[in-house]
Amino acid sequence: MSLTLPLPRVILQKDTTRTPVWFMRQAGRYLPEYRALREQYRDFWTRCFTPEVAAEITLQPLRRFDLDAAIIFSDILTVPWALGQHVRFEAGEGPKLSPLTHGNDLVFLKPEGALQRLAPVYAALRLVREQLDPAKSLIGFAGAPWTVATYMIEGGGSRTFSRAFRWLYEDPASFNTLMELLARITADHLIAQVRAGADTVQIFDTWAGVLPEVPFRDVCIRPTRAIVDAVRAACPGVPIIGFPKGAGAKLATYAQDTGVDAVGLDPMTPLQWARDTLCGTVALQGNLDPLLLVAGGPALDTAVDRILGAFADVPHVFNLGHGIVPETPVAHVAQVLERVRQYRQN
Amino acid sequence: MSLTLPLPRVILQKDTTRTPVWFMRQAGRYLPEYRALREQYRDFWTRCFTPEVAAEITLQPLRRFDLDAAIIFSDILTVPWALGQHVRFEAGEGPKLSPLTHGNDLVFLKPEGALQRLAPVYAALRLVREQLDPAKSLIGFAGAPWTVATYMIEGGGSRTFSRAFRWLYEDPASFNTLMELLARITADHLIAQVRAGADTVQIFDTWAGVLPEVPFRDVCIRPTRAIVDAVRAACPGVPIIGFPKGAGAKLATYAQDTGVDAVGLDPMTPLQWARDTLCGTVALQGNLDPLLLVAGGPALDTAVDRILGAFADVPHVFNLGHGIVPETPVAHVAQVLERVRQYRQN
Repeated sequence: MSLTLPLPRVILQKDTTRTPVWFMRQAGRYLPEYRALREQYRDFWTRCFTPEVAAEITLQPLRRFDLDAAIIFSDILTVPWALGQHVRFEAGEGPKLSPLTHGNDLVFLKPEGALQRLAPVYAALRLVREQLDPAKSLIGFAGAPWTVATYMIEGGGSRTFSRAFRWLYEDPASFNTLMELLARITADHLIAQVRAGADTVQIFDTWAGVLPEVPFRDVCIRPTRAIVDAVRAACPGVPIIGFPKGAGAKLATYAQDTGVDAVGLDPMTPLQWARDTLCGTVALQGNLDPLLLVAGGPALDTAVDRILGAFADVPHVFNLGHGIVPETPVAHVAQVLERVRQYRQN
Repeated sequence: MSLTLPLPRVILQKDTTRTPVWFMRQAGRYLPEYRALREQYRDFWTRCFTPEVAAEITLQPLRRFDLDAAIIFSDILTVPWALGQHVRFEAGEGPKLSPLTHGNDLVFLKPEGALQRLAPVYAALRLVREQLDPAKSLIGFAGAPWTVATYMIEGGGSRTFSRAFRWLYEDPASFNTLMELLARITADHLIAQVRAGADTVQIFDTWAGVLPEVPFRDVCIRPTRAIVDAVRAACPGVPIIGFPKGAGAKLATYAQDTGVDAVGLDPMTPLQWARDTLCGTVALQGNLDPLLLVAGGPALDTAVDRILGAFADVPHVFNLGHGIVPETPVAHVAQVLERVRQYRQN
């Protein structure tokens, strides 16, 4: 069934005549209807884990815009939470976790039962699938092991990731154990999302950009490959998008060695280089700068046209290069969508 | 004279038989003798702008280690300070500036007289040159216009650089005026450093990594090219190292289009890719991960050998991929130096 949908067809390189479009963080704070719901359900975890609420938030942008896909409203930190780590969100701050400090702490993680704890995510996906136009895709997602581990070890966001790197460099064996555990649970989580109605999945490696070459191979590519292999075995034909933000020139190896079907390009990626280096191996997704979506105006139109032109005859999903920021005017999102749709009519 | 020194010879691609070595932030908090001086001169600007103190700090690592170069102890924010912007450093925090908020604020910058205000930097360079072994290089430096502008606009460090980007996207004309002003004063500052005794200069573009492709051309490459042209015209034969941290695949264009003699590679740059893509155009510098220098042990030796091996027969300056961090054990710096020196004896 999913192969009749435009998004999977393009990602699997079966169609270059269409440009499907969705936006990372298309459900979120820039939408007044999201902010209204947030007044009612003030706790972030409540919004994620109440299936009706998460489903409603997921569908909000689809009611407003002619997007090709919904992406389930959830968070990459659901996985550490399901593993028993204390994770909390406070308004206006980033996430806070009780950090793992060394390899011995791994015994406190509880992989058994983790998927059951994530059941509300799957319930939300089923609710979305029931209500969503059958011509639209539904995207499931998870964080990649490296990115999720940085939060688990740093206890939140970081600028230097020095705790995660020290662990990796000083005790590579237990770091690898953590990577393998996260790869296994992440694969199971993605498979469960597909079984609940997702027809496409994306793996977010938001902090891949800080990894030197050798760790990039060991903690980005290798665990991602394990996830891709497991998802593909359980869910053949379901397209997998990998998004190793900031990978730079290492995107070539990532595309080759992980086995993903498409790569998300961040705004820093040069278009012609991506085309020359990655096309043939993978489909491309991206890479509009979210801050251009804030600015709007002719600069935005020029940037949209430049991306559409560069990828006109290769499999390409139009998207941002990272998530929509809260101060984005809703009208600018509509402006981009209209321009992408018109492009294919010419 | 400078062409008898190993560092300029390698950067100008006249010698591939030696591997000169220095470390970004080799003078600084990881050294007990620096921390002792800091007790005496607690204000950062006092340490920068008292020539005897800045010279002493510059020479400290050379007394301890067999490095090929001293780099003047100073800061990239001396330039906004000299332009009349309020810049302060408080212990344990990053720099704080009274931010420029839009194009109209540019009238408050005072380029006239800026070089005179920077006279203590040149006095410090002259003191270092008098005391430094004539077989060692002395490196002058400045921040690149984009990186310096981010501090001037954000008022300090930033994670998103959203003010700088909004200005750039919404008022590119006045942003360009700022870039041109910074390029002019930065070139003059580098030329004055050469006249005071620097035989090599480095341009630090620490935040180049957040620039999408089009802004990378407009606010990284173009102003850097202007600086390189001006420095080369005034100081022919003085090698220029460009360090656009995080440039990823765009390093190829940077190496081609700025005219720098060498590029600094950050730890994220793949070695073979850098060799294949950049050699012939520029010499290479880098790219050991500073957090491996903290970790030490066999992982450090392996990483050093990998870098030396990859660049054994091309012009290469051994260095870190970004600055030494304060918690670095002094013994690990000695360990790396010894390994680099031994490598060339084999």
